[in-house]
Amino acid sequence: MRVEIWSDIACPWCYIGKARFEKGLKAFAHSDQVEVVHRSFELDPDRPQGDTAPVIDLLAKKYGRTREEAQAMEEHVASNAHAEGLDYRTEGRDHGNTFDIHRLLHLARDRGRQDALLNLAYRANFAEERSVFDPEVLVTLAVEAGLDEAEVRAVLADGAAYADEVRADEREAAELGATGVPFFVLDRRFGVSGGQPAEVFTQALEQAWGNRAPLRTVAATPGAGEACGPDGCEVPQVNAHA
Amino acid sequence: MRVEIWSDIACPWCYIGKARFEKGLKAFAHSDQVEVVHRSFELDPDRPQGDTAPVIDLLAKKYGRTREEAQAMEEHVASNAHAEGLDYRTEGRDHGNTFDIHRLLHLARDRGRQDALLNLAYRANFAEERSVFDPEVLVTLAVEAGLDEAEVRAVLADGAAYADEVRADEREAAELGATGVPFFVLDRRFGVSGGQPAEVFTQALEQAWGNRAPLRTVAATPGAGEACGPDGCEVPQVNAHA
Repeated sequence: MRVEIWSDIACPWCYIGKARFEKGLKAFAHSDQVEVVHRSFELDPDRPQGDTAPVIDLLAKKYGRTREEAQAMEEHVASNAHAEGLDYRTEGRDHGNTFDIHRLLHLARDRGRQDALLNLAYRANFAEERSVFDPEVLVTLAVEAGLDEAEVRAVLADGAAYADEVRADEREAAELGATGVPFFVLDRRFGVSGGQPAEVFTQALEQAWGNRAPLRTVAATPGAGEACGPDGCEVPQVNAHA
Repeated sequence: MRVEIWSDIACPWCYIGKARFEKGLKAFAHSDQVEVVHRSFELDPDRPQGDTAPVIDLLAKKYGRTREEAQAMEEHVASNAHAEGLDYRTEGRDHGNTFDIHRLLHLARDRGRQDALLNLAYRANFAEERSVFDPEVLVTLAVEAGLDEAEVRAVLADGAAYADEVRADEREAAELGATGVPFFVLDRRFGVSGGQPAEVFTQALEQAWGNRAPLRTVAATPGAGEACGPDGCEVPQVNAHA
């Protein structure tokens, strides 16, 4: 079974939701047969690269609140993070454009380091004094995740590298009906929206597992479709799940 | 959309079927949205590692034919390979246990080099005078595919490395009803068995594309499932595809 998780590094509920999902996955009997893939979703794709602003100021402005009230909203998120055993700093964090991080996450996927980079980027953004909007910080994180520094710098320098992959993920999110993140898709059949409690994820995994459908066989052309099996080759095989 | 292809390096119809599938994929309008994954299937898992034998001898014995008749069977396969633009040598090829190759293909997947290694391994086995049952040849092929030599040697030396991944693929093949390879699975909903003509693959891709089902939403707990969207965070989101 495959679980695809659309999320953004700038989304606190994605950071928390990932921990909740992993807790829910741990409680699932077939967790060793689950593959998890990160998909890109930018919360603020129209913000120019390099244009960052303090999260507290943005929250206050967006919701028409005082800075103290915005601070309290962050405290609420922090308490949820702490409940999952995650560090969370409620001050001094910036918001910005995450396109480059998503491009690097695609490179990391190709190199088998996606989950490592994702965890380091979340941690840098939400728990540490490291700005994920600083390209040098991104290089450091990517190297910590096991990527090759020269390759990382080449991808960052070439804005087209993995850009199509990020856009394709975002197009798919829209097609699947995602309007916010985190958004979890199980075998392209079941969807879970938001950072739900761990039990909801366990239940979703069980539901998707129990609802695996038999394959539908596509047009076996008589005389074609040669195959090899334990007993030899060249005998056309027809899928038993017709 | 995701296509998983179960196959074995020792299977000539997998070599040919891969070329036919890729031709069929090229003719599919949404080919840029298709991800292809190799899955492991061993034709001869019980054969001891290192126990190899000439294919012609095995064919003659298995089907009770003369060596000349066995040779003619290989010529038949070769003509199919040639029709796809693939080289194929009809003499001097050995058969053996492919477990180590499958383990390396899983390492290659983690490093984004799976398709490169798969193509090189097929070519070595069916078109070149290189034995894929010789560990040193495997190292050379893996390095040609872009893998790190030390990492490749470490995986080959540790028989447990990626062994679970190979076994998991084989268990899934059985669960999906595959009795031979190549076996193609589209989004875990449609199956195509055997090295079918390219048009069959195009048709299967179109059928699977047209039959994409809307997601089923799993239990959105009221008050839980906080998410972030373009308009801000913390508003519980419910998937529109309910």
